[in-house]
Amino acid sequence: MKVAFQGERGAYSEEAIIAYLGESVDPVPRPYLKDVFDTVEAGGADSGLVPVENSIEGSIVRTYDLLNERTLKAGGESVHRIAHCLITNHGVELKDIKKVYSHPQALGQSRKFLDEHNMDAIPSYDTAGSVKMIKNLGSKDSAAIASGRAAQVYDMKILRRGIETHSENYTRFLLVKPEDHDATGNDKTSIAFTVDHKPGSLYQALHAFAESKINLTKIESRPMVGTPWEYIFFIDFIGHRTDTNIKEAIEGLSKNTRSVKILGSYPQAA
Amino acid sequence: MKVAFQGERGAYSEEAIIAYLGESVDPVPRPYLKDVFDTVEAGGADSGLVPVENSIEGSIVRTYDLLNERTLKAGGESVHRIAHCLITNHGVELKDIKKVYSHPQALGQSRKFLDEHNMDAIPSYDTAGSVKMIKNLGSKDSAAIASGRAAQVYDMKILRRGIETHSENYTRFLLVKPEDHDATGNDKTSIAFTVDHKPGSLYQALHAFAESKINLTKIESRPMVGTPWEYIFFIDFIGHRTDTNIKEAIEGLSKNTRSVKILGSYPQAA
Repeated sequence: MKVAFQGERGAYSEEAIIAYLGESVDPVPRPYLKDVFDTVEAGGADSGLVPVENSIEGSIVRTYDLLNERTLKAGGESVHRIAHCLITNHGVELKDIKKVYSHPQALGQSRKFLDEHNMDAIPSYDTAGSVKMIKNLGSKDSAAIASGRAAQVYDMKILRRGIETHSENYTRFLLVKPEDHDATGNDKTSIAFTVDHKPGSLYQALHAFAESKINLTKIESRPMVGTPWEYIFFIDFIGHRTDTNIKEAIEGLSKNTRSVKILGSYPQAA
Repeated sequence: MKVAFQGERGAYSEEAIIAYLGESVDPVPRPYLKDVFDTVEAGGADSGLVPVENSIEGSIVRTYDLLNERTLKAGGESVHRIAHCLITNHGVELKDIKKVYSHPQALGQSRKFLDEHNMDAIPSYDTAGSVKMIKNLGSKDSAAIASGRAAQVYDMKILRRGIETHSENYTRFLLVKPEDHDATGNDKTSIAFTVDHKPGSLYQALHAFAESKINLTKIESRPMVGTPWEYIFFIDFIGHRTDTNIKEAIEGLSKNTRSVKILGSYPQAA
């Protein structure tokens, strides 16, 4: 089974694919999130695993936008713990490290560790890409911050695991594919809707969900590209689109909104 | 007047400061958003201009988190058009350019232009930092994508202005300072609140706002760092915290929520 992801080989998304779907899966790296959707739509992969939310950094809104624009559905959910690893060339020890390369977010999240060890943080465009770079340079005084998977992919040495300041660093991913998932009794649904920009319109829109006692797990408003400061809402909630109370709520929502799109129903992550 | 911003000299935030507050302001570059708050709190700058939202990329949630954690208030708002410029060394022409360096977001937003001109996109950690780099290298076949301000700061040549695919690319900034702004009659207010995670709790929380006919301009739920998948809400609405209907709505909100924090009131951007 081929599963596309955004990033270089060894990215956190690739690590999440293996953790979610097992070692037998064939991960397909793509440069941009848009390319992940293109590849799955064109049949170059069976599905794609795309990040939607990180517990520290917030939503990855481009993913919601793509789900709204494209025909692929959200058909699976996975929550992956992000444990930053300090990775270097074989034969290099912790005391040798002067410079640490990684994406600014990973450097920021590991700032306490770097300060305590007097290591210089050098921003780079990618976590796994930094591992590849210090391998190619054969550097003896540098390390990179990336996933454990990156060390495996590039045959490098992990000096330390879990160097992030806040250990509760999780990323939520959705599996995108041509069809969403059948009901399992323990499901979540993601939808997008637009409302007139006037007082009380969101409140009215949510009325049907409160009536049906549906548990919202996430709400987000986004400026619409092309019409700045006009907003689209993305909400996630407990239940499957084929459940009676969910069907009723979506029907009620349709009466109080300009447009509604079901992005997909999927089994909730453990 | 000193105004701190996140990024290198010539960053879009610096360009936004000049457009908002004029040429006489002294912009103070800081590596991380957190450092902007630290610098203003320590008196190293009078205020800071921090991004909260981009019309294409979505919210910059770290800014909302910092406003919620710190004592500084939102006391001003500015909306700045992001026009990506293709910048190179003096004497270099458009036909000479083979490689283009920039932050992956700027490269992605300019993809159509780069494809049409057969230019290779090379990801870098920063827009203005890429201009500095190709200047230092004295490169004759490379360019960077960054703000017009970056060309001015580093004395470089602008080959093209506005190479982004979607011209409606705006970033909304907040001015953070020790006190927020007095009422002007044309104001916005930002607040944060937390609710119990149960069906209908957001709906109930918004009741007071719908009753008082307050126009919400933005709503966002965020996982709380340290307690993943527990949520805090950030909302922006029209009105000043000292307006009677706003005071009543916030009082009503307090009855239906665990906690409410006013992040600040400020004159609406034009």
